[in-house]
Amino acid sequence: MSLPDQQGRSSTAINGDDMIITYIGGGSRQWVPKFVQDMALSTLDGEVRLYDVNYESAQLNARFGNWVEIECETNGTWSYEAVEDLETALAGADVVITSTQFDPAETFVHDLDIPQAYGIHGAVSATIGPGGIMRAMRTIPLYRTFAATIREQCPDAWVFNFTNPVHFVTRALYDEYPEINAVGLCHEVMGTRFYLAHLAEEHLGVDATHDDITLNVKGINHFTWVDEAYCKGIDLWPLLEGYLDSEQANRVFTPTDLEDESVFVDNQQVTWELFRRFGLFPAAGDRHLVEYANWFLHGGEDTLNRWGIKRTGSDYRAKHWTPTDSKQTTDVKAWLDGEKAFELEPTHEVFADVLEALAGGDPFTTNVNMINTGQVSDIEQGAIVETNALVRANEIRPLSTGGFPRQIRSIIATHVDTIETVIDASRTGDVDEAFKGVLIDPQVRTLSPQDSRDMFAELVAAETSYLSEWELEASEVLAGSPEYE
Amino acid sequence: MSLPDQQGRSSTAINGDDMIITYIGGGSRQWVPKFVQDMALSTLDGEVRLYDVNYESAQLNARFGNWVEIECETNGTWSYEAVEDLETALAGADVVITSTQFDPAETFVHDLDIPQAYGIHGAVSATIGPGGIMRAMRTIPLYRTFAATIREQCPDAWVFNFTNPVHFVTRALYDEYPEINAVGLCHEVMGTRFYLAHLAEEHLGVDATHDDITLNVKGINHFTWVDEAYCKGIDLWPLLEGYLDSEQANRVFTPTDLEDESVFVDNQQVTWELFRRFGLFPAAGDRHLVEYANWFLHGGEDTLNRWGIKRTGSDYRAKHWTPTDSKQTTDVKAWLDGEKAFELEPTHEVFADVLEALAGGDPFTTNVNMINTGQVSDIEQGAIVETNALVRANEIRPLSTGGFPRQIRSIIATHVDTIETVIDASRTGDVDEAFKGVLIDPQVRTLSPQDSRDMFAELVAAETSYLSEWELEASEVLAGSPEYE
Amino acid sequence: MSLPDQQGRSSTAINGDDMIITYIGGGSRQWVPKFVQDMALSTLDGEVRLYDVNYESAQLNARFGNWVEIECETNGTWSYEAVEDLETALAGADVVITSTQFDPAETFVHDLDIPQAYGIHGAVSATIGPGGIMRAMRTIPLYRTFAATIREQCPDAWVFNFTNPVHFVTRALYDEYPEINAVGLCHEVMGTRFYLAHLAEEHLGVDATHDDITLNVKGINHFTWVDEAYCKGIDLWPLLEGYLDSEQANRVFTPTDLEDESVFVDNQQVTWELFRRFGLFPAAGDRHLVEYANWFLHGGEDTLNRWGIKRTGSDYRAKHWTPTDSKQTTDVKAWLDGEKAFELEPTHEVFADVLEALAGGDPFTTNVNMINTGQVSDIEQGAIVETNALVRANEIRPLSTGGFPRQIRSIIATHVDTIETVIDASRTGDVDEAFKGVLIDPQVRTLSPQDSRDMFAELVAAETSYLSEWELEASEVLAGSPEYE
Amino acid sequence: MSLPDQQGRSSTAINGDDMIITYIGGGSRQWVPKFVQDMALSTLDGEVRLYDVNYESAQLNARFGNWVEIECETNGTWSYEAVEDLETALAGADVVITSTQFDPAETFVHDLDIPQAYGIHGAVSATIGPGGIMRAMRTIPLYRTFAATIREQCPDAWVFNFTNPVHFVTRALYDEYPEINAVGLCHEVMGTRFYLAHLAEEHLGVDATHDDITLNVKGINHFTWVDEAYCKGIDLWPLLEGYLDSEQANRVFTPTDLEDESVFVDNQQVTWELFRRFGLFPAAGDRHLVEYANWFLHGGEDTLNRWGIKRTGSDYRAKHWTPTDSKQTTDVKAWLDGEKAFELEPTHEVFADVLEALAGGDPFTTNVNMINTGQVSDIEQGAIVETNALVRANEIRPLSTGGFPRQIRSIIATHVDTIETVIDASRTGDVDEAFKGVLIDPQVRTLSPQDSRDMFAELVAAETSYLSEWELEASEVLAGSPEYE
Repeated sequence: MSLPDQQGRSSTAINGDDMIITYIGGGSRQWVPKFVQDMALSTLDGEVRLYDVNYESAQLNARFGNWVEIECETNGTWSYEAVEDLETALAGADVVITSTQFDPAETFVHDLDIPQAYGIHGAVSATIGPGGIMRAMRTIPLYRTFAATIREQCPDAWVFNFTNPVHFVTRALYDEYPEINAVGLCHEVMGTRFYLAHLAEEHLGVDATHDDITLNVKGINHFTWVDEAYCKGIDLWPLLEGYLDSEQANRVFTPTDLEDESVFVDNQQVTWELFRRFGLFPAAGDRHLVEYANWFLHGGEDTLNRWGIKRTGSDYRAKHWTPTDSKQTTDVKAWLDGEKAFELEPTHEVFADVLEALAGGDPFTTNVNMINTGQVSDIEQGAIVETNALVRANEIRPLSTGGFPRQIRSIIATHVDTIETVIDASRTGDVDEAFKGVLIDPQVRTLSPQDSRDMFAELVAAETSYLSEWELEASEVLAGSPEYE
Repeated sequence: MSLPDQQGRSSTAINGDDMIITYIGGGSRQWVPKFVQDMALSTLDGEVRLYDVNYESAQLNARFGNWVEIECETNGTWSYEAVEDLETALAGADVVITSTQFDPAETFVHDLDIPQAYGIHGAVSATIGPGGIMRAMRTIPLYRTFAATIREQCPDAWVFNFTNPVHFVTRALYDEYPEINAVGLCHEVMGTRFYLAHLAEEHLGVDATHDDITLNVKGINHFTWVDEAYCKGIDLWPLLEGYLDSEQANRVFTPTDLEDESVFVDNQQVTWELFRRFGLFPAAGDRHLVEYANWFLHGGEDTLNRWGIKRTGSDYRAKHWTPTDSKQTTDVKAWLDGEKAFELEPTHEVFADVLEALAGGDPFTTNVNMINTGQVSDIEQGAIVETNALVRANEIRPLSTGGFPRQIRSIIATHVDTIETVIDASRTGDVDEAFKGVLIDPQVRTLSPQDSRDMFAELVAAETSYLSEWELEASEVLAGSPEYE
Repeated sequence: MSLPDQQGRSSTAINGDDMIITYIGGGSRQWVPKFVQDMALSTLDGEVRLYDVNYESAQLNARFGNWVEIECETNGTWSYEAVEDLETALAGADVVITSTQFDPAETFVHDLDIPQAYGIHGAVSATIGPGGIMRAMRTIPLYRTFAATIREQCPDAWVFNFTNPVHFVTRALYDEYPEINAVGLCHEVMGTRFYLAHLAEEHLGVDATHDDITLNVKGINHFTWVDEAYCKGIDLWPLLEGYLDSEQANRVFTPTDLEDESVFVDNQQVTWELFRRFGLFPAAGDRHLVEYANWFLHGGEDTLNRWGIKRTGSDYRAKHWTPTDSKQTTDVKAWLDGEKAFELEPTHEVFADVLEALAGGDPFTTNVNMINTGQVSDIEQGAIVETNALVRANEIRPLSTGGFPRQIRSIIATHVDTIETVIDASRTGDVDEAFKGVLIDPQVRTLSPQDSRDMFAELVAAETSYLSEWELEASEVLAGSPEYE
Repeated sequence: MSLPDQQGRSSTAINGDDMIITYIGGGSRQWVPKFVQDMALSTLDGEVRLYDVNYESAQLNARFGNWVEIECETNGTWSYEAVEDLETALAGADVVITSTQFDPAETFVHDLDIPQAYGIHGAVSATIGPGGIMRAMRTIPLYRTFAATIREQCPDAWVFNFTNPVHFVTRALYDEYPEINAVGLCHEVMGTRFYLAHLAEEHLGVDATHDDITLNVKGINHFTWVDEAYCKGIDLWPLLEGYLDSEQANRVFTPTDLEDESVFVDNQQVTWELFRRFGLFPAAGDRHLVEYANWFLHGGEDTLNRWGIKRTGSDYRAKHWTPTDSKQTTDVKAWLDGEKAFELEPTHEVFADVLEALAGGDPFTTNVNMINTGQVSDIEQGAIVETNALVRANEIRPLSTGGFPRQIRSIIATHVDTIETVIDASRTGDVDEAFKGVLIDPQVRTLSPQDSRDMFAELVAAETSYLSEWELEASEVLAGSPEYE
């Protein structure tokens, strides 16, 4: 039995002692080893199926997972298996993790470099702006396939999506299979909780970790905001408002200052400036915020640097991003071969807490991306929004967060319009319809009509082989542009 | 600092070791002794101020509270004091409890008897229908005073209202002081959890208590509905749907069957019938549901009886209802005088859990009545709705519950229209405006225009002395009716 | 080319000199002769196809139409033809009139008598309440067929529906074919304009006819309201408000007073009482208003009489209602046979004015029933609402009318919920779903659950042969009721 | 008597034979002489009061108005008088025209030149974008004064605003006096009707003038759109869609091509490009459209030129704009002195038609700017929107126009957010709040945070003397910027 409007629940109870987890993207050197450790330290038992287009990489991870069970003192008991076929991997799963993209590093280079040639100096170009939209266009069709297969093979499974752009991708899952129990997860808000714990310790004289920070989170992924923040019940708002005039919240950086920093450096200056201007506190890393609040992109890399952001250059992308063999990685082989000592230790991921709560353990509250059924009152229903949710036995339910000041709502709504336009377009593969979503993106609104079109055509031309589900031939936009041959 | 839209939080953290609680209605023989026991068994410490128009009764309760601290092995450490003056009682309070009405039993008799003379056989007439609206009209001005004094004396206090009609009364608190941290609490949903635990034990073969039942609750007080129900994560919907055809869900009662029952008897037949017709499961006692879903009132007491409900006669009201000396009471004097043995034991109230969570203890989820900021997506924002909320350090936040099937939404919306109309009218004391709210009540829509007016005039005439804040003289409705002299 | 959201227009211009009009219900003795006269006096030319299940009656009307062209001095030139087949009749039509119901008088008798036996003394039971809903259930499937055939045969035609219940029926046309250019027309508001012209003459000392009265009309058919009224630009509001205390607006009738009156008598006392209570002026006949504002039905025929309304008894219905041979009729045969003198004269119908405006003549403003696209701002979009519209060359566009006082909006919204529920149910013929719409009707909310069900079952049983498109066998509601065998 | 929600009506009928019109800005050499001619040729009689800060200029116009009455064969009979005092000018007026701004040409130069220095090459900078917003900030306080005085002196008067930015200014009138009968009028849509008549003649072979073109207009002033267009009832959509591929709709201009053109030249290439991209047809001049659809501004004057637009340079502004002595002017003195022959002839203004209809003449339909009460269904209620309205005796009522495709709605909503933000800020003169509205303007979103702030500070600094109602001292935004000293 299933009520059509019962979002966020599965009709069968998850059994914490006998759980089937399917990991799509199970060849990941970065995330699977973390996952293995969290499962090993959890109170849960079951089996994990690792699915990946790179089957060998999945096999290696499976070997690692089973090795940990034998070699380490684990709490949970888990068996791992690499599965070559998507249907088989999903059949009867209780939980599905989606964390994969098939397109290679070169596409990310294009996402950054081609817009840059038109004057759009995206900080990371990962989730919005022309590069982010292209990534969405490449990825959405794949996730439609996942959703359709889930509907067939495990319709009640809880599906956790970690793949960027989280809003586009999670939205695609729901668009394909509206009753899906899908949740997008992301780390960015965690960073804000670390930062606020640090501020509370320093300025309020309390001992605090990120676990002591509770926030009312709302927005869309990578553009989330906080209008209430507590540390052990102490309202942090007076601290935050008072801090606005501090030196720390008014720093100006030079390129030289950032020379030795990683591209992930976060100096929070964008955060403070947005708080100063609009009254709510942003809860995502500065390098993501600027893709949405795009004032900070103008003037190119210098402006980014001035606000303490280091641009993720395409060279970095080219070197570091390969889904299954990345510098952002762990030492699975070395561990297995005994070349490196392995120590089983908890990560900072919340995923195990979520699973334990779903299986009937302690209720847990964390931020999630789900279909808006009212949790953000002034963003359209049906869009994917990010808010806190309460997780408890077989239920993930968003908390009601209210609405926004007009100006922030306005900025978010525009991005939602882009996302919804591209999702609509992806139903039939109508590129010209998708281009409407590109056009209304605030980064693109800094280009002339001709440049908008040429940039889009150039991006499509460069990434054609990853856009096979789109009707490129029929496009008027592409046909008219010399960039697309 | 206070954001105008930050509902459900206080800017200062509650200190669980030094809490000031003001109990308005602190002379109650029924509720204060329970409260004393829960506080004594809690992990919290502090002081309690008992305020009541019946000062002596408050003094007796204070004596009892302090006696328990001395005589019993308590966990929390609490001191009790009766306070004669409202301002003094509220000054600097962290928590305010409102649980009092000043009008005497006779008014409740009128609420029942006068409509009955016009053919409206209310089951209890406590929270809606002509009797419930009259009760609201008598009570709203008092709660405006409370809200105004709270704004002056303890603007950040958490205010818990237990007074019926909970929706009208809680709405009045917000209407007078929009930034108030007010929450209406009610027991009805707890009954549904007991009932569903019982069903789960009997039919699913699991051990279950009400604590194992989780629900998605939504609606307005005494007319709440459930569209998801789990027992330890097991979806109860298939059980509930299957049960519809059972003998237990299709019982027909005769007056004789109910002869020996109390007026509180609940046979759940209204619950099942509403579930059968409209697809969601009601989560309030049958005798309350029928005041909103008023089909069950027609045909008079016989129809009520046929569905297993015993009417709360006015004779019962007259005998049992006196705010400070009631049969619904406890044996404070006997305990203090040693005439009866007192044993400190937990009640089933959730209030202590709520306070502990607010003070930084384990987060707690329970159903609350708060201003709708989106938690029910298709009921108007600003109305008081009942849903679950997550309670944690200094925060009470409703869970997002989605919307309703059209027909239930329609019925609720009509009642909200009555409530909002009366609240609007109460700002200026415009009785004729309030009468519009009476007219659109579905119980009243069974009367002719003349009878509607005469019944209202008769009710006002009978209760005039408790309606001193209303502009009775200026009324066109009353002037034209012979019932009002 | 057709934009999906272009409501109220046809893509080809109507040619006023060569118009094809298809009249569904073209055998009507009542309406077709009026139509013939209006066309003859209009500036338009073309051909009329008369379609009717009673083909002979349509043939007679065709003979009459052509006879008028020959015998009278006409302005427009028209040829008439009876057509036996619906497809042929509609092929290529510019304008379609729907004005027919196939079920015989006996059904109307049931609509009145069966509810009466349960205590619902409907004044006319024609458009809402249990009788009106039954009529809708009988009629909707037929109009789905009309809409589907129009989509095939003349997709851009302007469709004018005169059949009651106008809201249900017009809504069904749109539900079947969302791009249809359909408009529901009704006389009731015209009566209000006559009445206000009379009041203006009498009390403001101006010469006035109904043409001098302009109103802002809004609501649903037969429950329309006015919040602005002018006579030659003079605001009538002060007059109306002043008139409330007059003797004329406070009359009380006895059954004797009405003895010699027709069932159509309108004494406006319901109008004045609703204006007094809710602040807007109703713009429909009292006997229709009371079906929606159902206080006036309680107490049975006596209450109706007290407000100056004479109940349309089922005996009247039985005698007077037969679609093609009615006392509400004209003397076509007598005219043709020369037994009666025929004089070509204008009727008070606005239809010719509408057609002339559509064909490029003078723009014309009149009240219409169309899909709500915002013209009533606080009734849901997609419902059929009645407002004024501007008619001009190939365009019928509603005027924006704003919203309602809360209480009137509340009453209307409930009826819309019934209408939408029944329309939804009619898609699959789900009787139990339709019964939900019956249950929430305010007239039915005066019955007990058992009586609601029995009455519905009895109505369905009596009218089964006209409900062939509904899935009666599968119904739980009917199965359980002894009334339905 | 006045219902608060009765928008668009006056409680007293306008007497077409004895009308009092107050013309605020009555010294205008440009508009008053046109007005005089239209009144002289109208069927109306009455008196006109000319109010202007330049009293002498008003006196001259009064002399001209009275001279026309004597010298020419007029239809209407009108007397003209210059009035020095605003209160006196407004006392008892039936109609008020507002068409004035007090700030001199230099401010318009700043509006253009300062943003240009930051890379914003506004085409005309008159109604939106940083220059347009500054103009609004200078003008809103003055119109608040007008509205407040109207409320006192002539609360029921019809107020017609011709002053730009029409949306900001008309919105300010309503914000100050919510019951005002205010209507903003503008010529832009008329231009679209001329253009479409031309296309229809050329391509459909019909005789057509702008009067034969009917449109469904919706949007905000200077960014209006059409989703239905007819010429004598012929749907123009197929023509427009077919035309998209024509050479005429795909022209590319060079600066040389435009050398000899006036700044008012309109080559419709922006119009066609927006139609091509978004599916609705824009109904305003290209030079205005680009301020809202700001892609066309990027690349500076070259991009504008490429689309056939000539930038209104600040030199032009400096030379041509002086409210009372402008090149956009007429030859009043020469006429009066007999140096030039005067011929009384109709203008293309619709204002006389509007007044005649209001006074009970033929109903008239034209585009107006009014508070949104639903006429545009997906733009927020309360914003000023532009749609058609029906004008008839004492009533101006918007036509219901439906909603927008998502992308156009998105662009409009952003501008509405700016307008509403500035209006909110103007209530208290909070410059930093107004700056939020500047920041979210799409033109400004092409600037870095520092440039946004500096540009705003520089604009404020340059125009300080015209911003006396704003709290400049308290501003954090201005304080922090070196541009503002």
